Amino acid sequence: MRPVDLVAFIEKLAQSSGEAILPFFRTGLNVTDKGREAGAFDPVTEADRAAETVIRRLIRATFPDHGIVGEEFDDHKPDAEHVWVVDPIDGTRAFLCGLPVWGTLIGLMKNGEAVLGAMNQPYTGELFVGGVGKAHLKGPRGMRELRTRAVGSLAEATLMTTDPRLFSAEEREGFTRVEQSVRLSRYGTDCYAYAMLAAGQVDLVIEAGLKPYDIVALIPIIEGAGGVISTWDGKSAANGGRILAAANKALHAAAMEKLHG
Amino acid sequence: MRPVDLVAFIEKLAQSSGEAILPFFRTGLNVTDKGREAGAFDPVTEADRAAETVIRRLIRATFPDHGIVGEEFDDHKPDAEHVWVVDPIDGTRAFLCGLPVWGTLIGLMKNGEAVLGAMNQPYTGELFVGGVGKAHLKGPRGMRELRTRAVGSLAEATLMTTDPRLFSAEEREGFTRVEQSVRLSRYGTDCYAYAMLAAGQVDLVIEAGLKPYDIVALIPIIEGAGGVISTWDGKSAANGGRILAAANKALHAAAMEKLHG
Repeated sequence: MRPVDLVAFIEKLAQSSGEAILPFFRTGLNVTDKGREAGAFDPVTEADRAAETVIRRLIRATFPDHGIVGEEFDDHKPDAEHVWVVDPIDGTRAFLCGLPVWGTLIGLMKNGEAVLGAMNQPYTGELFVGGVGKAHLKGPRGMRELRTRAVGSLAEATLMTTDPRLFSAEEREGFTRVEQSVRLSRYGTDCYAYAMLAAGQVDLVIEAGLKPYDIVALIPIIEGAGGVISTWDGKSAANGGRILAAANKALHAAAMEKLHG
Repeated sequence: MRPVDLVAFIEKLAQSSGEAILPFFRTGLNVTDKGREAGAFDPVTEADRAAETVIRRLIRATFPDHGIVGEEFDDHKPDAEHVWVVDPIDGTRAFLCGLPVWGTLIGLMKNGEAVLGAMNQPYTGELFVGGVGKAHLKGPRGMRELRTRAVGSLAEATLMTTDPRLFSAEEREGFTRVEQSVRLSRYGTDCYAYAMLAAGQVDLVIEAGLKPYDIVALIPIIEGAGGVISTWDGKSAANGGRILAAANKALHAAAMEKLHG
């Protein structure tokens, strides 16, 4: 299957999952707490389940040999050559608060490498897609290629994270060192931060405690736009954990140095 | 002039200012630092000036007797019976980061009281309007009335603020007491937080250091949707300063008590 077909398929997944989600956005929701982390507020919405159901159905009908790993349901053929990695609503708290910075993450792994990824924001009508060394945004103002910024120093850089309270004490120290070196930092962004990095609006995203489905789809978008993304140890971001995404190699190296003091 | 005419005029202002702003959103910007506060990062964009120019021109042509107070230019007849209070881009940092949570704020004061207000988000196509005991959203999914939530206790409430680092040490203490009492808090929201409070998505917004043009337009939206908004001292929010907005009277009182320890 050629890349162009996969992009068309991604658009179909985005369209269908968006239609499943939007009726639940900014309405009364049945919020349940998965209780994965004791004390943490981790809501699952009906929208989450409806969207992942639609996405899984379409993938299984179109690619019966492919595996699927998603946030809401059990793994399906996780050892297949091709595995789809799906988070129907990344940023459930933003979703609950009515903020349009959540997104549907759909990534495709081939032999353990993230080769295609999409972030769909159905309320704003934005679909960010990356793969094969390219990335683009299809949105309400048309289609455009995504390119990260050439910002070369931390002093000129803008930094984003979802919530500094999500870091452990040790992680927070590293994050704060970077934060104190940059021009501007901004909280409350979820997956939208990575899309804005690809779009050349911000230069660094630093997070921790991510699951693979939180990040796999975003790797090809960042890399396709010219950015660099890894764990804080410089390893593949595809397994989740502590993530550092940067607009370019020099900035990635500078931030990495600060993270580790 | 009847209220319905004023709402139509607000829609015209929103349309025209949105057209002035959007060509600058997510593009290279001429960012200058006004330097109002030494060391603070307070960018003014060409979009800011273009939008306020358009808004002032329309107001002066339509209501030659009305005053205008805006963020970017000098006051015009600030002692008139009717005074428009305008912030062309509230949330310039969100704007620079490409996040769709900034907004154009347009308020109308009559004899010192905020009687009509609008928050326009042209990228998402959302216009929030309040006045005369009502509030509505005209957006991509149609028109709906806005109603705050009936949440009666802090333990059930969701709290928003733009950035906890914007508080003084003393303010931060009060904010933290409220934050530790609520179910969920969320950062990075600017004027969008108040719109979400009116829409029944969140229950509290707490900020400090606001200018009148940061808040006047939002008062009729909050109050029209059933919410309560004041300074931390219980005075009119129209002069800016430390602001507490709540979904209802009981929640406002509970948060006020926590703010003051």
